[in-house]
Amino acid sequence: MSANTDDGLLIVSEEICEQVIRRPDAFSAVEAVFGAMARGDAYNFPVVREAIGHADALYGFKSGFDRAGMVLGVKAGGYWPGNMAKGLTNHQSTVCLFDPDTGRLTALVGGNYLTALRTAASSAVSIAHLARKDAKVLGMVGAGHQSTFQLRAAAEQRDFDKVVAWNPHPDMLPRLAAVAEELGLAFEAVTPEELGAQADVIITITSAFEPLIMADWIKPGTHIACMGTDTKGKQEVDPALLKSATVFADEIAQSITIGEAQHAIASGLIGEGDLTAIGEVINGTHPGRSSADEITLFDGTGVGLQDLAVASVAARLAREQGLVTPVAL
Amino acid sequence: MSANTDDGLLIVSEEICEQVIRRPDAFSAVEAVFGAMARGDAYNFPVVREAIGHADALYGFKSGFDRAGMVLGVKAGGYWPGNMAKGLTNHQSTVCLFDPDTGRLTALVGGNYLTALRTAASSAVSIAHLARKDAKVLGMVGAGHQSTFQLRAAAEQRDFDKVVAWNPHPDMLPRLAAVAEELGLAFEAVTPEELGAQADVIITITSAFEPLIMADWIKPGTHIACMGTDTKGKQEVDPALLKSATVFADEIAQSITIGEAQHAIASGLIGEGDLTAIGEVINGTHPGRSSADEITLFDGTGVGLQDLAVASVAARLAREQGLVTPVAL
Repeated sequence: MSANTDDGLLIVSEEICEQVIRRPDAFSAVEAVFGAMARGDAYNFPVVREAIGHADALYGFKSGFDRAGMVLGVKAGGYWPGNMAKGLTNHQSTVCLFDPDTGRLTALVGGNYLTALRTAASSAVSIAHLARKDAKVLGMVGAGHQSTFQLRAAAEQRDFDKVVAWNPHPDMLPRLAAVAEELGLAFEAVTPEELGAQADVIITITSAFEPLIMADWIKPGTHIACMGTDTKGKQEVDPALLKSATVFADEIAQSITIGEAQHAIASGLIGEGDLTAIGEVINGTHPGRSSADEITLFDGTGVGLQDLAVASVAARLAREQGLVTPVAL
Repeated sequence: MSANTDDGLLIVSEEICEQVIRRPDAFSAVEAVFGAMARGDAYNFPVVREAIGHADALYGFKSGFDRAGMVLGVKAGGYWPGNMAKGLTNHQSTVCLFDPDTGRLTALVGGNYLTALRTAASSAVSIAHLARKDAKVLGMVGAGHQSTFQLRAAAEQRDFDKVVAWNPHPDMLPRLAAVAEELGLAFEAVTPEELGAQADVIITITSAFEPLIMADWIKPGTHIACMGTDTKGKQEVDPALLKSATVFADEIAQSITIGEAQHAIASGLIGEGDLTAIGEVINGTHPGRSSADEITLFDGTGVGLQDLAVASVAARLAREQGLVTPVAL
């Protein structure tokens, strides 16, 4: 997995990332690093996140080291709300990879496309390991740019035949409908309550600050991946759902502080011991779903090691395919 | 100062940094950013520093934003003790600069030479603003790689005629002697006690974990710049010296936690209120030295904004001189 090279620095542009890395690559990389995290072979460093007081920007770093994959690095970047008006993506990120043996910078990788891909891979990994094998209806809560990535990655994990979707702004739903059609899946715009009644698997991918899905609406056997909550105060689902579900997380420490679990933890509905790292299921040290009726919930908060894992794969593929030439630094 | 460009990403190698940036450039950049910090126009983000559990490496990030200079970025890197055996520098660092208006990466700048330069500029700025104008003898405690940078930068601030030096390993002193000779300064290897008796200005630049210079050895009117302590536990001078001196720091918060002041603070000899940001002297909001007999002490802990400031200048000069070509990311 390592992009180490003695030949200099690889510059892997956004364009090259889009060209070389495929969803299965991102899936494998994210699955492997979640496993490494649960074994203690990989860990994320403290996150830096600052409102810089200029252009309303949030800026910071996610970083970590995966000893198993020999991947060391940082994703730098943030959120610039005024970018869209300038024809740029609001989220801007760049990944730096370093040689763990020497500390030398080995690759600089555009992080925008990869962030979308690794976030989609995260819910896909949770579906692969936790959803019922016979899941047929996929529920999508949220219809922004990222939702199409989640849908495409999820669709590869089970033999779905239908997508039901709800978004606070219904005018955005055609975007999801078009992807569903492209994937050969039926599509229905529904109320959130109806979504809960129909869906076997649900992905929430919004920027909400209040529960959009109530515990009572979810039927037994559902798997729900909450992917939107990555900040204090954000929330997508009823905290009671975390009490009735078996809860998994990418990183427990982050889940209980800035993830979806923050609210159920704060209100005492669940404790830290009620959460299981998804990596435990991947590694086989936790059985995962225990019955057809169990509700499983995955809190995907997004960790730096996911970014580094997919960036490392992109750099390796770009080099193998002769698309990048090392430069001196 | 900004390296912003709409043309893509500038890759500024170590070699180009050595070619374009001069000591006066580094001095001005560091002086300006210390001033901006004291005015509240620039601030450092939390430092990330991790023992990664591989190759005995310490790895991390220093970052910040200077609203006055419009410089936003991060220095990533660390310390790999086994590098020297591989023909590499043990300290490895890289600076990423971002456009504060959009978050886009504008420059990637080799950080090894710049780190040496900005550290030297820091003690030079303290000498310029705090040492007696009639200082003649410069005392150097420490004779490692970095000491020659400190000596060269310090020598430009006063009309010195002699260097006195001490190092725990005396066999390294010829390195400093050679630089002194090149600068036309007399050189004498002395005991630390004799160094205190002779020197008007002292720079400590070691990796010591215990006091090397005692308070009693320092004569009235001395300015001492403590540049080696940047970690919990490190120490170069007697804590009593911080009690008898007027103490200045690059960043007070860092000085009292991981800088030279940590010990005097921990033992209750001084309080946080006894420290003054050097930027206050630069800005004229603190008078600096108040008498010819006052002992002034500068605690230079090294902040991310120094790195970003010099990297920004290097990127600008490299672009202006046509030495770098923007690449797409």
